[in-house]
Amino acid sequence: MAHSQKITASQELSTSDARWITLKKLSYTDPEGKERAWEMAERKTRSSSGIDAVAIFALLRSRKGTFPPSTVVIEQYRPPIDKVVIELPAGLIDEGETPETTAIRELEEETGYKADRVLDVSPIIVSDPGMTNANMKLVTVSVWFEDEIQKPEPKLEPGEHIETRVVPLTELHEKLKDYDSKGFIVDARLQHFAAGYQFSQKLKDGELP
Amino acid sequence: MAHSQKITASQELSTSDARWITLKKLSYTDPEGKERAWEMAERKTRSSSGIDAVAIFALLRSRKGTFPPSTVVIEQYRPPIDKVVIELPAGLIDEGETPETTAIRELEEETGYKADRVLDVSPIIVSDPGMTNANMKLVTVSVWFEDEIQKPEPKLEPGEHIETRVVPLTELHEKLKDYDSKGFIVDARLQHFAAGYQFSQKLKDGELP
Repeated sequence: MAHSQKITASQELSTSDARWITLKKLSYTDPEGKERAWEMAERKTRSSSGIDAVAIFALLRSRKGTFPPSTVVIEQYRPPIDKVVIELPAGLIDEGETPETTAIRELEEETGYKADRVLDVSPIIVSDPGMTNANMKLVTVSVWFEDEIQKPEPKLEPGEHIETRVVPLTELHEKLKDYDSKGFIVDARLQHFAAGYQFSQKLKDGELP
Repeated sequence: MAHSQKITASQELSTSDARWITLKKLSYTDPEGKERAWEMAERKTRSSSGIDAVAIFALLRSRKGTFPPSTVVIEQYRPPIDKVVIELPAGLIDEGETPETTAIRELEEETGYKADRVLDVSPIIVSDPGMTNANMKLVTVSVWFEDEIQKPEPKLEPGEHIETRVVPLTELHEKLKDYDSKGFIVDARLQHFAAGYQFSQKLKDGELP
């Protein structure tokens, strides 16, 4: 269903007409004291928390060991890419929210899964620091099941079209390759997570040339 | 040294005056056929490869086992963040280059290390798909040493100020926390790599609550 979305028009947008993002020209001094210039893009929507967004790594586990430790990724059409992008669940931090609150709320809205507890919150990290000031936190949460994995209904807002996939962690890196070969595109942060996971396994198993 | 850099002025930049990035307004159809709008930022510099940049995960190993499997991260002042950012080595793809060529060239320029071989090249991945169309590949390369790790001289361009740090992979996640507590800021892709690596270890060792 998400595949039916597509760009129908694209035009240059003047900074004065833009509502959500803007361009800025920065001047800075380099270590030799020389004045240099830099261009950047910036969101206009950052809340007073000083953080734009969270991504959620949800660790799904079965107490009876019925399924292997897994996570949930989402498929979502992203207009700037004009494709369905595979990402960790994520969301912008609303005014007054903590990153933990946003993570638990967004995970349930986008995927239906209710987190039992927050396992880890990263420091503030930056998504593309050469081009934008966009920042975020990676929040890790735990979702336990007694037995089989459940497939709850998400609580999507009108106009939100998100598909949810549960992936065993040992298969994540391979699954992202499959997605790519099928015409999806993978978020860089999710790909790096999967690469780190896979390298740890390969190094332990002596599988690297 | 890189710490001495700072923003001295910041002003809104009109799209017509911007040289490196621009703003666009997109129209797209949602799955119900409704017309919707989206604002994005875009680099003007993408080469004909269709890929903006590569990040380089360099796997540093000793044949004699003198040091544990390690990687190299860089410390670089980033004007949009106005802080020194901790990142994987990375660079924009020049016209006519392949991602592999860029990775080997940039690793040597930024850190001095010469890659023996390319171990893996990711699909095209996107850095912040809600805000920009910025894309990249993650290239994994192998750097072998007979014995002790060497500290070669980087080949930085005038005006480039980059510090290099070698970090054992098992200490990467903790090292990024240290950097944060010292006033640096960590790139989201590097943080996700470290998180994936650490979760794989913790799950194997049964260390997760």
